[in-house]
Parts: sequence; C-alpha cells; structure tokens
Amino acid sequence: SIMENVKLGKLNFLPLPIGKSRTNIGLELYDNATEIFPWNRSLTGSGVEKTLRWIETKISNFKKIEFKTGKEIFDWVVPEEWNISEAWLEDPDGKRIIDFKTNNLHVVNYSSPVDKTISLDELQHHLYSLPEMPDAVPYVTSYYQRNWGFCLPHSQREKLINGIYRAVIKSSLKPGVMNIGEIFIRGQTDKEVLISTYICHPSMANNEVSGIVVLTKLVQWLQSTSKLKYSYRILFCPETIGAIAFLSERYKLLKSKLIAGFVVTMVGDDRGYSFIETPNKDSLTDRVANHVVKYLCSNPNIIPYTMRASDERQFCSPGIDLPVVTVMRGGRYPEYHTSEDNLGLISPVGLYGGFEYVRLCVSALEMNCSPRWVVRGEPHLSKYDLRNTTGGPRILSENEFLISNILAFSNGQRDLLQIADLLEKPIWEIYPSIRTLKEKNLITL
Amino acid sequence: SIMENVKLGKLNFLPLPIGKSRTNIGLELYDNATEIFPWNRSLTGSGVEKTLRWIETKISNFKKIEFKTGKEIFDWVVPEEWNISEAWLEDPDGKRIIDFKTNNLHVVNYSSPVDKTISLDELQHHLYSLPEMPDAVPYVTSYYQRNWGFCLPHSQREKLINGIYRAVIKSSLKPGVMNIGEIFIRGQTDKEVLISTYICHPSMANNEVSGIVVLTKLVQWLQSTSKLKYSYRILFCPETIGAIAFLSERYKLLKSKLIAGFVVTMVGDDRGYSFIETPNKDSLTDRVANHVVKYLCSNPNIIPYTMRASDERQFCSPGIDLPVVTVMRGGRYPEYHTSEDNLGLISPVGLYGGFEYVRLCVSALEMNCSPRWVVRGEPHLSKYDLRNTTGGPRILSENEFLISNILAFSNGQRDLLQIADLLEKPIWEIYPSIRTLKEKNLITL
Amino acid sequence: SIMENVKLGKLNFLPLPIGKSRTNIGLELYDNATEIFPWNRSLTGSGVEKTLRWIETKISNFKKIEFKTGKEIFDWVVPEEWNISEAWLEDPDGKRIIDFKTNNLHVVNYSSPVDKTISLDELQHHLYSLPEMPDAVPYVTSYYQRNWGFCLPHSQREKLINGIYRAVIKSSLKPGVMNIGEIFIRGQTDKEVLISTYICHPSMANNEVSGIVVLTKLVQWLQSTSKLKYSYRILFCPETIGAIAFLSERYKLLKSKLIAGFVVTMVGDDRGYSFIETPNKDSLTDRVANHVVKYLCSNPNIIPYTMRASDERQFCSPGIDLPVVTVMRGGRYPEYHTSEDNLGLISPVGLYGGFEYVRLCVSALEMNCSPRWVVRGEPHLSKYDLRNTTGGPRILSENEFLISNILAFSNGQRDLLQIADLLEKPIWEIYPSIRTLKEKNLITL
Repeated sequence: SIMENVKLGKLNFLPLPIGKSRTNIGLELYDNATEIFPWNRSLTGSGVEKTLRWIETKISNFKKIEFKTGKEIFDWVVPEEWNISEAWLEDPDGKRIIDFKTNNLHVVNYSSPVDKTISLDELQHHLYSLPEMPDAVPYVTSYYQRNWGFCLPHSQREKLINGIYRAVIKSSLKPGVMNIGEIFIRGQTDKEVLISTYICHPSMANNEVSGIVVLTKLVQWLQSTSKLKYSYRILFCPETIGAIAFLSERYKLLKSKLIAGFVVTMVGDDRGYSFIETPNKDSLTDRVANHVVKYLCSNPNIIPYTMRASDERQFCSPGIDLPVVTVMRGGRYPEYHTSEDNLGLISPVGLYGGFEYVRLCVSALEMNCSPRWVVRGEPHLSKYDLRNTTGGPRILSENEFLISNILAFSNGQRDLLQIADLLEKPIWEIYPSIRTLKEKNLITL
Repeated sequence: SIMENVKLGKLNFLPLPIGKSRTNIGLELYDNATEIFPWNRSLTGSGVEKTLRWIETKISNFKKIEFKTGKEIFDWVVPEEWNISEAWLEDPDGKRIIDFKTNNLHVVNYSSPVDKTISLDELQHHLYSLPEMPDAVPYVTSYYQRNWGFCLPHSQREKLINGIYRAVIKSSLKPGVMNIGEIFIRGQTDKEVLISTYICHPSMANNEVSGIVVLTKLVQWLQSTSKLKYSYRILFCPETIGAIAFLSERYKLLKSKLIAGFVVTMVGDDRGYSFIETPNKDSLTDRVANHVVKYLCSNPNIIPYTMRASDERQFCSPGIDLPVVTVMRGGRYPEYHTSEDNLGLISPVGLYGGFEYVRLCVSALEMNCSPRWVVRGEPHLSKYDLRNTTGGPRILSENEFLISNILAFSNGQRDLLQIADLLEKPIWEIYPSIRTLKEKNLITL
Repeated sequence: SIMENVKLGKLNFLPLPIGKSRTNIGLELYDNATEIFPWNRSLTGSGVEKTLRWIETKISNFKKIEFKTGKEIFDWVVPEEWNISEAWLEDPDGKRIIDFKTNNLHVVNYSSPVDKTISLDELQHHLYSLPEMPDAVPYVTSYYQRNWGFCLPHSQREKLINGIYRAVIKSSLKPGVMNIGEIFIRGQTDKEVLISTYICHPSMANNEVSGIVVLTKLVQWLQSTSKLKYSYRILFCPETIGAIAFLSERYKLLKSKLIAGFVVTMVGDDRGYSFIETPNKDSLTDRVANHVVKYLCSNPNIIPYTMRASDERQFCSPGIDLPVVTVMRGGRYPEYHTSEDNLGLISPVGLYGGFEYVRLCVSALEMNCSPRWVVRGEPHLSKYDLRNTTGGPRILSENEFLISNILAFSNGQRDLLQIADLLEKPIWEIYPSIRTLKEKNLITL
C-alpha cells in the first residue's frame, strides 16, 4: 500500500501536544476572536483583506489566490469589489438613528452607494428587521443584485415617525479582486485532507469568527507536528462563491488526492457537538467524525445532508462529490445571523472544544491504518513480553487484553477505526498498541 | 438512458384529472359494482363471458385471448367449460329449500349435473357450511375433480330433517374455451407495467367485483392520459389458471419488458391500505407501493410474501420472478369467501380509495426518474429566479428550500422515489419542481 | 452443484435417533465425566495420554497425530513432555498441608521438579490463591517458562505460620511427544465439518471434561448415522498449542474443504445456551448456530468475537479465517478455572443439552440445501396429493400451507436455513417436506 513507508507519528493526546493547558488555548482563541470580531468582512474589500493578513501573521506558507471581478467560475461570476467607509440614517429631526460605526450589521452587505432624502414609506422598502427578535439587528446581504438597505432592531423600526429621512451609504462597487487564502502542509504522502472555513461574515462571533480562529490554531498545530501521514490543504475563503472559486482551481487535484475533508463552522459556542453527514453517509470522513463525536459528548447531534448549512453544499454537490463533512459545536442556534451572535455567545471553553474536535478528527485520520497480523495462528505472545508466562486464574491485564483484541481483528481488511469501534474504545487509546505491535514486527500496516 | 427522449407528462393530482369529484367517481364505481355483482362468474362459461363483454363496452382496445379445453399450460391443463341454468334442493316435503336463483354461491362452482333423490346422510357429503359463521353461505369450488354440492348457512343445515331429498343441478361440463381479457396501452417507451385483477368469482363484492370495476376505471384514466412514459398491459383473467395461461403466452415478453406490476384485489372496503411485498422486498414496485401507501394512511399494513393471497403467487413464483406486488385495501377480512362479502361490505368511498391507490402507484412510477445536476458546484439559483437575491436572516421559502434540496441529491444515481423519501415528501409534491428544473436546463433526466 | 447426487438422509429428531431416552443419554454422559474427571491432564504426559486412550475405546477410526518436543509449529515450539508422580508441601511442623493426591489442581501445571526447604517468605512466590474465592483452589499453568508452585485456598494460605517449609514435586520435563486425536468420518461429499474440543485440563468438570464426553458421544452418533452429506473431522487436542499443531498439518486441506466448524466447550452446566460468533458474524456456521440456539432457549447468549474464549482464537485468526464458532452452554461462570468447577457443577441434564445442541447444529447443516422449484408458475398441487381438490372457505391444512410456503421461496438461491427463518420454523420441521417435494420431483437440490 502507499502507506508502506509511512512512519508512525507520535500523536499523544493527554496532555495536549503543544505545551499549553486547555484553559490557555481557550483564552488565546477567545482573545483572537475578540481582536478580529469588529472588522467589516464581506466577499471582497478591506475587511476580508485585513482578516487574511491577520491569518498570514499567525502561520507559515500562507498563499493568496486572486480572482478578478467578472471571472466566470462554474455557474457563477466573481462580483465587483465592495468597500464602505461610512453609513448612517438620519430621522426627520436630523438625528442619526442608525450608524454603521456602531455595528457593521446595520448596513446591508454589498449596499450600493446612496445619499438621498426619502419618505418613511419609501424607506421601509430598504429596512430589514426581525419581528420575532425585536432587539436584534439582522445580517442581510445582496451580493448579486444592486440594492441598498439598513438593518435595525424591529423595536426601533416600529417607533419610526413619519417624515423625510436621509440615507447615506458611502460605499463603492468597482472591478477588483476576490481573494482566498490557502495553506498547504506537506506530509509523508501526497494524499490530502481539506479543511476549510469562511471569512466573509462581518461582526458575528460564532458564525464565523470562531471558524477563523480555530482553524488558524489548527494550522499552527499541524505545522508543529512531525511525521504527518497526509498532506493538508487549508482553505480560508468567502462562503459559497469562494468555495466555488477554489473548486474551479483545485477540483481535479482534489478528485485524485483527497481522502477526507472538513468544513469548520460555528465552533465557538458550548452547546454540544455535531456534524453534517455527506449525502451518502458512507465516506471515511463520516466514519471519522462519527467516531470522534461520540467520545466528545454523550448525545452528539448527527445531521443529515438534507439539513446542510455551509460550504459542504459545494464540496458534496453532485458532480463534485468530495468526502467532506461539516463539523460544528451546537449547529444552528437562535442568535444565528443577527447581532446577538456576539462575543457573549462564544467562550474560551467553547472555542477550545471546537479546536479539540477538529484536532481529534485529524488525529483519528492520521492514526487510522489497516493492520495485518503476520504469523499463522495466534502469536506466542509471551515470547514478545506481551503476555505473562503464568496462565490460569489470573485475568489478563487491561493491556494484554487490548493487545490480544487488536490482533484478533487485524486482518488487513478492517481499518483501525473499525477495530476501535468493535472494541468500543477511541482510536487514540488503541493507537499506542499499534506502535508496539509494529515495533515487534507482529503486524504490517 | 432510454428515458432521454421521454417527454414529461403533466400528472396533476389534486383535483382529480378526469373532471369528476371524488364522490362522483366513488358512486360510479359503486354503480358498476352493483351492475355486475349478480352474474355467475367462474373460470369459464357465460358469467365470465358476460363480465368480459361488459368490460369491453367501457374501454378501447380490449382483446380476448382464448385457451381451448385440454390445452397444457405449464403444470396445468385448461378445464372444460362450465355452464349452469338452474339448481335446487327439495326437502322430504318437496319444498325447495335451496335455490341457485336466490344466490349463485349456493352451488359448488364447477358442479357436475345431477338429478337424484338422496337420503340426508348421503346428502351431507355434498353440503358445505361454516359452523363459525352460521348465517353465511360459503364459496366452494371443485374445478379439477368432478363433484357436485350445495352451500348453505350452517343454521339452516342444522335444521334439516331426516328423509329423502331431491338434488337438481342443471349444469354442463363440455370442451370449450377459457378466455382472458388483455388491454395494451402504448406509452413513449416499450418498457411495460402489468396491472391485473381476476374475474372468476361469482357474487362476492370485495373479492372480486371491486377489482374489476376499479381496474376498468383505471384503464379509462390511462387511456385518457397523454404522454405516458411506460406502456401498460392490463389483464382481466380467472385467478390462478388464468394468470398461468397468460404467463404461458407472455412470459418471455414480460421478462424483457416489465419494470413493475400490480395485482389489484379486494379494493372496495374501507379498512385501510395494504400491499403484499415481492419475495425479496427489493423491487421498484415494492418501493413504489411502500412510498404511496405511507401517504394514504398512517398505519399501512405491509404484508410479507409468506402471507401471499392472489395472482402474485404466479407472477413472483421461482422461475417467473416478475416484480409484482398485490395492492389491497384492508386485505383478508372475516367475510372473505362467503355470502357476507356482498354490496354492503364495499362502499363508494372504499372503491374510490382503491382506485386512487392504484392511480397513485402508476403516477409515482410515471414521475420517477433519475435527475442529474448539470453544472459544477451549486447553480447560481437567483439567476434562474429560483432564489431571492437578498440573503440573510430571511428563511428560504418552502419552494426555494425544496428546489435546493432536490438539486442537492440529484446525482443521476438516486431516483426521485429515493429523493422524495430523503426529503420526507410524496413524489407528487416534488415532481413539479423536476419539471421546472428541466425547463431551466439545470438537470438532465 | 456438488450436492446433485447426494442422497437425503433421514435425520429424525423426536424421539432421539440412537435408541435411548433423554435421561439415559444424560446419565451416560455424566458417568463418563465421572470416570475421566480425576486424571491429571496437561498439554502432554500420562494424563492426557490416558484420556486419548479412553476416547479411542469408545469410537472407531481414532487416529493419533504425534508432535515431537522442539518441533516448530507456526510461531510456537512443542514443549517438553511433563509427567508427575507425587507432590506435597510440609509445614514447619512436618505436616503435609497440601498434597497432589487429593487434587491435581494443587500443583502448578508443568511445574519443574523440586525438593527443597524454604522459608514462608520465599515460598509465597510459589503459592497461588484467589482472595475473592477463599475456599477454591485455582488452576495455574506455566507451560513455556520453567517454574514450580502450589495452588491452595486463600483461607488456608492466610493461616500459614512462619517457619521452614518443605516443597516436593516429583515431576519430569523431558523430550517426548504431544499427541492430538483425530477422527475422520467420510460422508457422501468431501466437504468437511470440523468439530473440536480440548483435553489438556486436569480435574475440572465443565471446562473441560464436559467437552470430551459430549464430543465422544457425538462421534458415536455420527458413526451410526447413514447417508451423511458432509465428511466430519473431529479433533481432541490440547488447547491453543494443540490447535496450532493441528492447523500446521491440516490448514491447506481445511481451507479448501471446510464448510463449517464448531469448538465444543463448557457444555455440561445447565445455565442456558450460547455461542461465540466468527469475527465477521456472517459464515454459514454463524447462521446454523443462530438458527439452532433460538429454538433451544428463549434468551440465548450470542457472544461477539471480542469475547472469544477457546480454540476459535486459532481457527478464526487473521490468515487462518476458518468458519468456526464456539458452542457453549452458559459460557463463562464464576467457578471457571478453579476447584469449584467440579462434578457438582455439571449434571446429566446439562450434558444432555450440550450434546443435543451440537447434534442439532450438525443436523441443521446436513438438512440445509438450496431447493429449486422446477415448473413454471405454481405446480398444480392437487395432482400431487399436496392440496385438497375442493377449494373455498376451507383453510389450508398446516401441511398444505407449509408445502406451499416452502415452494414459494425455493428459487435455488435461498437455502433452507433462510427459508426456515422466513417461515419462522426450525429447519427440522421443514426438512420432511423437502424430502416429500424431492420425491415428487417438484424441486431439485
């Protein structure tokens, strides 16, 4: 197999491999989230560029891929670049009642420039609010049709008085570029794992500052880990159009090299663990996520592809069919796509759990292998110091029992995930024995 | 695929496609049942011939296939033709206590002619009654061994007095013919669907006047429907021997053309919906019946082939192995094969439900296809007016959600029944979107 | 198929085929167990040789296969031959407090010869007891590392006084032989069934005197049964090393001929019925054991291969992969591997049940076949006296119903175990109808 010459890495899990306590990592992730939260991200423009530069400072080998406005990518066209400096709404008394400065969600993302006086009736066509969440500012976009608008709490909207308002949005829509960030980490084989998150959401914390900080941290961990079996391709891109742009460049390569992929999203809250299955639920990635999630919490939420949420829509679409699942903490939540998805919704503990979740998925993949017992009949285990020479009433030690059980199922056809599931243990508890058995030449991989 | 050039039919379901209200169809079916109920049907003879002529008046392209007495068909031989004009039993006082005129069930079907005086003791060998249903006349046959007999309520039998009785049956058994009726309705492809019922039962309403009137109505509907994808072969035949005769003529053709088949029986009562699975439970027909029946009632009765009941015994027999299920309303019932299976047991609503059940099975088959998404990545749906251009807090409309979900699973391998099941919707709610997506060239079929 | 010319045997089950009542067989098995219980069995030496000779007296065609000390077999080496005449431990007062004569479990199996005085402290390193079962003598072995020791009740050990003890073991370890016993019973085909038990355990009743007496009785039954379809290879061997030695000789033959195998162990108690599945749970043997065990008790214990117990560890090991399950009565029990596994733990009823269990497994295998209905459409059953000629309200007799149902599923692909499971009946209730249908040429096998 292509794994013949792969050297087994030492992927130790408890304590954490990068020298920091659980609390410290959570706090670091939360600090990072706090830093990048305020920036006005979109598909294009200064906010997303600043975010990409921030990621670049944290890791090595960051590479930008540029797509020019107007470029056709699959069924889509790269839109104009959007920038915005200021925006406000004045009421009939000349008072600024909405200001972009206080919250970038107040302006419909990709709003055209405007500076006009306007009656309340006409203005209503440009206002967005949520009756069912009267205090929240909704997140609204109009990327592909020129439009402008303001988002505000429904409670505020209901108090608007009749009269003439002034709406000012100092934005620009011009030919420019859309950028995506890619990091490639070369492992011992050229089989690849894709991990992506998206960078186009303005000031919302769980969706999607959490994905950015967790994936950045994961890249640091991968870049500090030696003897990775697989190569890793990391993607930071605007949602949907960015994933499509990436696929238009990388589809053929991924089709021949990808063995698993993870979209990382909404990984900052502390509301459980979940993942979205691939359409057929049968990929290696599904098996990895299934295995990991059941050891992270007692009641994981396994979501069918009918309820898909993010860029797995592109990676798993018919004709693309890559083995990509989406890993999330709690998944959809009431504050989704509103100003209530703020830094109070995420926490150091929540972000740490999100990081650990992705790290365990990667580790499970790295540890997975198809061990094959090499002698005929049972090996004479006491010869190898793997069994006590005295038999009888003595019960096998836990390790003797584990070694014996791993061997019993190591037929070269089952992989370690299957063996771990048969033995009802996490793969990371079984992996050290695989290293031992390999060292004693009792298995091949 | 052979479906490449098939034009999608407009199979609309609510309201009904043939211009009549639900009530009217039910009443028409019940009137028809009332008309043909009294006739003395059997495997052969005037009653079954009259029934075939009645069917012929209702529809186009009716064709009779004739089998001569003595012809060997598979393991069987076509029996003599049976006719009967009169039959009665006189008690020792010369009083007619049983008369064929009042109910054709009183005479054992295929009784030889007889006119003899006979003691009660000897007569008892020729009487049939049901102790457990003392007021019912049972339905008894002796097709393949010459015999004669009378059927009567057990309560009446118990009161018979000793003495000499006179038994008269004016019947004849002579070389003749057994006929089956076949209608072929040509669709856009030569792939066929078989639908059969049986015509040999004398005056019983649910088993089997119901099947005759429902299937006749279904033929009318099929003959009035344009752009059928499949061709339909409809069979009206005596049970068992008729199906075997039909198979002896059509087996090779069906083996190469048949994609699905339905035996229609006991479809006039109002006691639920059921079907009998094929032996392996895995044919397209099983999937269609399964899909339809769960939207017809909340607790359908899905019956394994171990409990088979009718001509599916022939169509699914080893060596024949056609994908045929049997659709029924309630299935076996206490009044089965007795005089209590009369016009009071069936109802307009019951018959209408039976018709609708078969029609939905046919429609599900016609609507089924294997759509394949043609662009790479998600289509830019707003370009096709299938998605609002404003994104954000707005929840997708039901139709946007449906379109998106259908596309997500349209990989050319899943068929629409599978997609419908994944989306937990009936195929007839999904089919209009398939037409839309096809018109916009977003899928191929 | 290779079964084309096989003649169907008459495997009748009730009453028992070998002319004895259930009670008599149980008593005979218990008498035999009582006879061989006291002998000091081990991997080699006089106890196991005596046991093999005893088996030889009971049956025909017994054959010994000899393995010389030092012979390499797979990953193992045949050990020296061990014999022991006497052994005792004297306390500081010169009193014999442990004596091999009273119970052979008192000496660690394969103890080296010793005759020395020794302090209590030093002696403790050579004593074995079970704190959790203070009155039981544990069963301890040290086959592959020279050692000596005594086993005693923990309650006795705690009362040992300080002082100088004398330990005497008059044993020898010399180049010699390890023997296994094999019986081959030729059937109508050369496809084989393996049935094994082990003979190395000293005085313990359920594990493993029970296996020896039950398998010996089964050989008698097989040798008295005519028209066996399969050939049977019976193995009596020391556990583990004996099975490995056997495989080193027979592996290639078994790989090409074996269709099923059973390890018989712990079949003397009366605590239910169980079996250990093969690793993939999908062999014919798994299906046979599953089928039989559910008709033996209402709540059988089906044990996954993760909890394997005996020589199935060798037969199912990766690279060997033979379809062998282990049949047991209750399986693991508290008295396991101690002096409490004595003649009080097993019973005539328990042993009889163990015998019946293995016999039914063999019978199910022998009866299994893949019947194929030979006519097109249903056979005209009344022609063959398999259906009453009068049809109608009469319900089919149980036998008519069974015949019809067997035929309906006899497509040449399903085997009789599958058909029996579909019909929810034991295969031995269905088999007589298969004989009938074969005689009437309605099926081929």
